[in-house]
Amino acid sequence: MGISPADWHRPLEAAFAGARVLVTGGVGFIGSMLSARLLALGAEVAIYDSLDPDGGANPANIASFRDRVRLTVGDVRDTGSLAPLIEGRAYLFNLAGRTSHMGSLEKPVDDLEVNALAQLRLLELCRTVNPGLVIVHAGTRQIYGRPDALPVDESHPVRPPDPNAVAKHAGEAYHLLYHRLYGLATVSLRLTNTYGPGLRIKDDRQAFLGVWVRRVLQGEPIEVWGGEQRRDLAYVEDVADAFLLAAIAPEARGRAFNIGAGPSLSLGELAQLMIAANGGGSVRVLPFPSDRRRIDIGDYEADDRAFRAVTGWAPRTMLADGLKRTFDYYRSRRGDYL
Amino acid sequence: MGISPADWHRPLEAAFAGARVLVTGGVGFIGSMLSARLLALGAEVAIYDSLDPDGGANPANIASFRDRVRLTVGDVRDTGSLAPLIEGRAYLFNLAGRTSHMGSLEKPVDDLEVNALAQLRLLELCRTVNPGLVIVHAGTRQIYGRPDALPVDESHPVRPPDPNAVAKHAGEAYHLLYHRLYGLATVSLRLTNTYGPGLRIKDDRQAFLGVWVRRVLQGEPIEVWGGEQRRDLAYVEDVADAFLLAAIAPEARGRAFNIGAGPSLSLGELAQLMIAANGGGSVRVLPFPSDRRRIDIGDYEADDRAFRAVTGWAPRTMLADGLKRTFDYYRSRRGDYL
Repeated sequence: MGISPADWHRPLEAAFAGARVLVTGGVGFIGSMLSARLLALGAEVAIYDSLDPDGGANPANIASFRDRVRLTVGDVRDTGSLAPLIEGRAYLFNLAGRTSHMGSLEKPVDDLEVNALAQLRLLELCRTVNPGLVIVHAGTRQIYGRPDALPVDESHPVRPPDPNAVAKHAGEAYHLLYHRLYGLATVSLRLTNTYGPGLRIKDDRQAFLGVWVRRVLQGEPIEVWGGEQRRDLAYVEDVADAFLLAAIAPEARGRAFNIGAGPSLSLGELAQLMIAANGGGSVRVLPFPSDRRRIDIGDYEADDRAFRAVTGWAPRTMLADGLKRTFDYYRSRRGDYL
Repeated sequence: MGISPADWHRPLEAAFAGARVLVTGGVGFIGSMLSARLLALGAEVAIYDSLDPDGGANPANIASFRDRVRLTVGDVRDTGSLAPLIEGRAYLFNLAGRTSHMGSLEKPVDDLEVNALAQLRLLELCRTVNPGLVIVHAGTRQIYGRPDALPVDESHPVRPPDPNAVAKHAGEAYHLLYHRLYGLATVSLRLTNTYGPGLRIKDDRQAFLGVWVRRVLQGEPIEVWGGEQRRDLAYVEDVADAFLLAAIAPEARGRAFNIGAGPSLSLGELAQLMIAANGGGSVRVLPFPSDRRRIDIGDYEADDRAFRAVTGWAPRTMLADGLKRTFDYYRSRRGDYL
């Protein structure tokens, strides 16, 4: 444990004040929170985002700091547009990607192009024009499939349950490989379910959590499929911290880390906590839909001790507090997200 | 153990006599041997091959049966050309791919396109136009990287040491996933070093073994890098048997299997066996080249018991015999391969 939470600010500011940073997917849920944190640390932030209407991008996510970032609208597959943004940067937070599991069933080729092929092209670009760049990649715990046991550490077998997980795993593997082959300063964070302000809530294209938040806000019952399944929920600000700390930890390079928050809880318990955080609501328990069962991962809880040991990171937000802040955010910004 | 080697012919003939079969990469080393075996079993064989000058394809490989197969020249990325060949087929032996590890460092995007993106498109095509097709995919042991211990079974962690292994693993993962998601009858064979007639020997783009065969034929010393490393060598006819048996074993579907031959031997021992098989030759021991060290896997020996148990397969060719047949082949066909 190098640093404790109270000590984070100093090394982060030392690293990022005045630093030229690029955030791909920076108009998205986690990317926008990360961009806000980088600005607060004094970084010069460029954002590259496709504003894909089926993804997590929402201009409302960056509205409060839109005039302080350089936004380039483009697809991560368009290496030509990315090239001038890579040159001269110190850090790349590489969050552009497809995250929808169901979406990857509908458009598997598109999913592979964005999550692996474009990532490989980007890495080739980095090693050519800016080999000193620090690159933090957004991976996913989905690659483990249905866990053998909880909690899941990084040595768990990789068993992708859907096309998205195959492509995300390949994209991550290229990041780690380019560290070993070419010395690129890469690290990948295998994210768990993330919640908080900025999550896409108008439908389930980003996460089931978004739909739950929306239904609670609209006074509709949360539809819980089954309810016994366990999930590990991370608050978006804690996840942004993880990206920042990953970038400044030399010992993290070339490695992939689970990021959780823990302890896990059942979806039934989560629904009750959401209702409590909102100050009201109801639950409707439904059978698990058959079209999702085939790609379902069962339970998940991250063992993220490796990441904590290397970076000193720890989640700072209790679930009840994070949920309350989430509802407060959407209540005041409802028109931007529904 | 369902069937013993002596019993293979009957079930294979029952499955393949009159069957409409497509072999991608069928002008290549293993694909051409497999096509010859399929013809001998009475199958109606179509071959799809790009005839890529940097790959394993050599018209000499199919010269003896060229008039008995339907050959379509095309890239596996060209789904439009593949579509009419998929319809109405009973079996697809999917061997088209990039196999060069060094080549994947030079052209990683091309490697990913061929070994994963094209494979995914092909699977999408199969599930759309011919969901009953039996598909056997050529995987590779390269995905394991540097083994933790020998022999290596299928539960060994996947640690791709080069771009080729990342892409081949993704291509395999899609095959297995499409079994689970859509019921496609897929199986993948993780091949070890394969030798025998038809191997590209004019350079090292297919395997180091090719260069060794060429140097022995030309009376030059075999250049052994180090020599301590262990390899598991499989004779091409035995590998062709493995593909055939994999196709007719329902219990194999949705699974990936190591294919070896065993026991492993050191490269120094292999060089001596080659010299003995040829009736003369010499060895020059050189240090391991630094540009290959970074992607080198160290030792390898397959634990292929799972495949043997499910299919009854066993290698039938002793290394000394296989090497002798290899040299006999090239001595009579030198002009076609050098």
